[in-house]
Amino acid sequence: MEIKGEIMKLVAKRLDMDAGGKLVAVMNKNDAEELGIKPLNRIFVRFKKKIITCIVNISENFVKEGEILLYNEAWNILGLKNFDIVEIEKRPELISKTFIRKKINGKRISEEEIKEIVKDVVNNNLNDLELAAFITALQIHGLSLDEEVAFVKAMTEVGKRLELKRKKIVCDKHSLGGVPGDKTTILLVPIIASLGLTIPKTSSRAITSAAGTADRMECLAPVNLSLEEMKRVVEKTNGCIVWGGSVDISPADDLFIRIEQPLNLDPLYIPSILSKKKAVGATHLVIDLPTGRGTKIKTFGEAFDVASEFIKVSKKLGINAACAVTFGEQPVGYTIGPALEAREALEALITRKEPEDLIDKACSLAGILLEMIGKGNKNLALKAIKSGKAEKKIREIIEEQGGKRNISPEDIKIGEKQVNIFSRKNGIVMWIKNNELAELAKIAGAPKDRGAGIKLHVKIGDRVKENDKLFTIYAEKSIKLQEAEKYAKEIEPIVVVEDLKKNMLIKIIKEEGFERSFILER
Amino acid sequence: MEIKGEIMKLVAKRLDMDAGGKLVAVMNKNDAEELGIKPLNRIFVRFKKKIITCIVNISENFVKEGEILLYNEAWNILGLKNFDIVEIEKRPELISKTFIRKKINGKRISEEEIKEIVKDVVNNNLNDLELAAFITALQIHGLSLDEEVAFVKAMTEVGKRLELKRKKIVCDKHSLGGVPGDKTTILLVPIIASLGLTIPKTSSRAITSAAGTADRMECLAPVNLSLEEMKRVVEKTNGCIVWGGSVDISPADDLFIRIEQPLNLDPLYIPSILSKKKAVGATHLVIDLPTGRGTKIKTFGEAFDVASEFIKVSKKLGINAACAVTFGEQPVGYTIGPALEAREALEALITRKEPEDLIDKACSLAGILLEMIGKGNKNLALKAIKSGKAEKKIREIIEEQGGKRNISPEDIKIGEKQVNIFSRKNGIVMWIKNNELAELAKIAGAPKDRGAGIKLHVKIGDRVKENDKLFTIYAEKSIKLQEAEKYAKEIEPIVVVEDLKKNMLIKIIKEEGFERSFILER
Repeated sequence: MEIKGEIMKLVAKRLDMDAGGKLVAVMNKNDAEELGIKPLNRIFVRFKKKIITCIVNISENFVKEGEILLYNEAWNILGLKNFDIVEIEKRPELISKTFIRKKINGKRISEEEIKEIVKDVVNNNLNDLELAAFITALQIHGLSLDEEVAFVKAMTEVGKRLELKRKKIVCDKHSLGGVPGDKTTILLVPIIASLGLTIPKTSSRAITSAAGTADRMECLAPVNLSLEEMKRVVEKTNGCIVWGGSVDISPADDLFIRIEQPLNLDPLYIPSILSKKKAVGATHLVIDLPTGRGTKIKTFGEAFDVASEFIKVSKKLGINAACAVTFGEQPVGYTIGPALEAREALEALITRKEPEDLIDKACSLAGILLEMIGKGNKNLALKAIKSGKAEKKIREIIEEQGGKRNISPEDIKIGEKQVNIFSRKNGIVMWIKNNELAELAKIAGAPKDRGAGIKLHVKIGDRVKENDKLFTIYAEKSIKLQEAEKYAKEIEPIVVVEDLKKNMLIKIIKEEGFERSFILER
Repeated sequence: MEIKGEIMKLVAKRLDMDAGGKLVAVMNKNDAEELGIKPLNRIFVRFKKKIITCIVNISENFVKEGEILLYNEAWNILGLKNFDIVEIEKRPELISKTFIRKKINGKRISEEEIKEIVKDVVNNNLNDLELAAFITALQIHGLSLDEEVAFVKAMTEVGKRLELKRKKIVCDKHSLGGVPGDKTTILLVPIIASLGLTIPKTSSRAITSAAGTADRMECLAPVNLSLEEMKRVVEKTNGCIVWGGSVDISPADDLFIRIEQPLNLDPLYIPSILSKKKAVGATHLVIDLPTGRGTKIKTFGEAFDVASEFIKVSKKLGINAACAVTFGEQPVGYTIGPALEAREALEALITRKEPEDLIDKACSLAGILLEMIGKGNKNLALKAIKSGKAEKKIREIIEEQGGKRNISPEDIKIGEKQVNIFSRKNGIVMWIKNNELAELAKIAGAPKDRGAGIKLHVKIGDRVKENDKLFTIYAEKSIKLQEAEKYAKEIEPIVVVEDLKKNMLIKIIKEEGFERSFILER
């Protein structure tokens, strides 16, 4: 054992175990104490010209003094053989931790400081405790406009970027979600692309919902494209719909989301969304804010607050953004679940007529983009549908992404196990429970079982008779269908009001209590 | 001029002017200074055995030293002749002002302290500034349960009380309001009374609405009854519907409301309501909380909060209270405006069938009272309607209050000027704007013009065709009808959605902005 300043040379031995992707080393207790290293501290491990950062585990007997054990991941990166000599050094305290403490103490952090933090996040230098504290501080103190902008820039910098040749105008679209069955993107992208405009769309998979746009599109064509493949598709067809996770444009975002989700906090949702738009070079962006009881955004006021933030931050980033408040109190179209939705979206492009709300929504949002650019309006979008240009375009995109160009709706396999749910009374559909419908589709197997989901036969305002079909549940497995049927009967996701006039009393309160929801939402 | 301790004798002269009910005296500046009296201070004025409290105005020349001018109201109470000698004395600082400051400083005030304040309010000893400060402090700091209870007791004590012989059970009903056209009380009172139970109902006139229950009932029978007359009616028929203002059961409440309304604050709404119930000796109380977008209470959570407060305070007062959450997103029945509503309520009792929602609501609330008492349920209430017992009972009550027993709906005069508003499209009625409808009825003349108002031809969920009648506006004066028609066309209080499926985009936001409302409420 030789000591040279703060550097220690140790004999490396392989510990033939995987650490789940993390770089982990095990040191002897005495060696660690000598360098002032505690368990879970980070060390630099140097071999020849390679340096990695490892998390330290400490052992009294399992590893001898003068030796160091390295898990497979670290071992392989360094390309070690047993008994190679590595140099180790305690990693100094991260400067980004100082900036995190600054934010915790309620101070603003600068663009440079945010860059440093995001860099350390991406390099896995910050542990979960530190990230949880940071996310919590962001949530409590909020972000200034400058901080939001700095986050977008920092998050974009650490990821890959889509660089398209000779494209001055790049369109993009985002939805804040909260409405099940929203397959608008699958119509909007080919509409825009068919009009000669560029729209390199990345989408997410379902996180808590029954289907994300990436899940839907995957029933039509592969979506796990690399950034290079995505570029090729867009340069050939003007558009694409790929999974954002595979193109690696915002690695920081994925890491933040991993912390935010279990905490149910989302202080970074605006930078997170806009960093992905910035990464694909978007210049014009329409943001869909589905609004209404039973969605994420309940009131106009909330929509305005969210829209204002998006617009302010976008402006600073040089993105021309507009927000669309859309009716969000029921699913878009009639289907929920990857395959059912893909089928419905494809049918809409083929029939060019139905479902009307889906076509109306896609054309409205496309129209906003066209008006921003000064190249048309909703009518032009509608023409792209009616003329079949949009259908032709989606088929090109499907083919270029690696799917079957002439795919027909019937080619998309939907769950063979089916059960119908009927109305128990005559009346009018007054309310559709968005969250419960999504949950039901998930119980039936969506999004993992692609063919699982729900097909509605009625929407709000429709009159139904007793024993009319309200909706059909599709599943791939009988057991899941049974569970879903049971749940459906319990929650009654489609509220038929026999007659508002005969149901004036909604609840009697005799004791103190508590509950938060709108009348029809309960 | 003679000085005896702090008492000053002055020569009284009449100032032949009315002070709007206030007791006002004008003193010479020098006399006032001698006693340390400033403008708007209070003084005691004594003549023979009578003592009154007067507000002081001060003049340099208009009144001579050694004299005092008294406005008509004060002059008459004391029974003075010109040149009578009165004794005056500066009224000491009120102890209740100390208690008000205590509340302003965020401290709780005791039952005794609240009694003192309420007493001084009723005796007009506190001026508007003091009351405004007090109301504001109550709003900011809130009231503890004990304070709410103490207010009810104090407010009840300073008013008259209804003492009914041999009545162990006394029913009552209250609605928090917010829904136009709510004529439920006119059905509920005769239902309850016809079943042998006592319900001495006092109601309010319209404050900001198009009709209060007192205004509605007044189209059927006089409602300005004294407490003695009210007692006679109730002892004969088991029920009544009279104006709360005329029976003088909660004078403190009227004085608090006079301050609260212009400030748009209502910290005392629960004590205020319950003091009136306590004053009529209520033992069982049902409180209607109309809930929904477009009403006062928007969500279940709010309804629960309000209900909890009512139930807690009622319990402490020995009142058995239950709250009913009712559907409040559209008017009850089809009419708005005193005469139209009185007609509709009477028709409901005669036809025993329609409007269904009105009958359903009245029977539901009556059912809650019956179940609390253990004497039946909603079905029994419905039987009272169907059998005609309720109709018979309202006619008895009408007669005893001084109305025409055999009054028919056609006897109730409604506005002769009428205009129909038609639908501009085919579609479904998705939303009715409560506040705008009330405003419209007021523009047409309600509640002052009793025959003015609105009759709806459709309710939520109804399908309409283009040019179908949506509603009729009634007025007594052409000019008001014209204004109302103009307003109606501007605000479109009945929202017909041609097709939800064709109207997915509700608003585009391109700039930062602000607005608070639900999607359909805009």
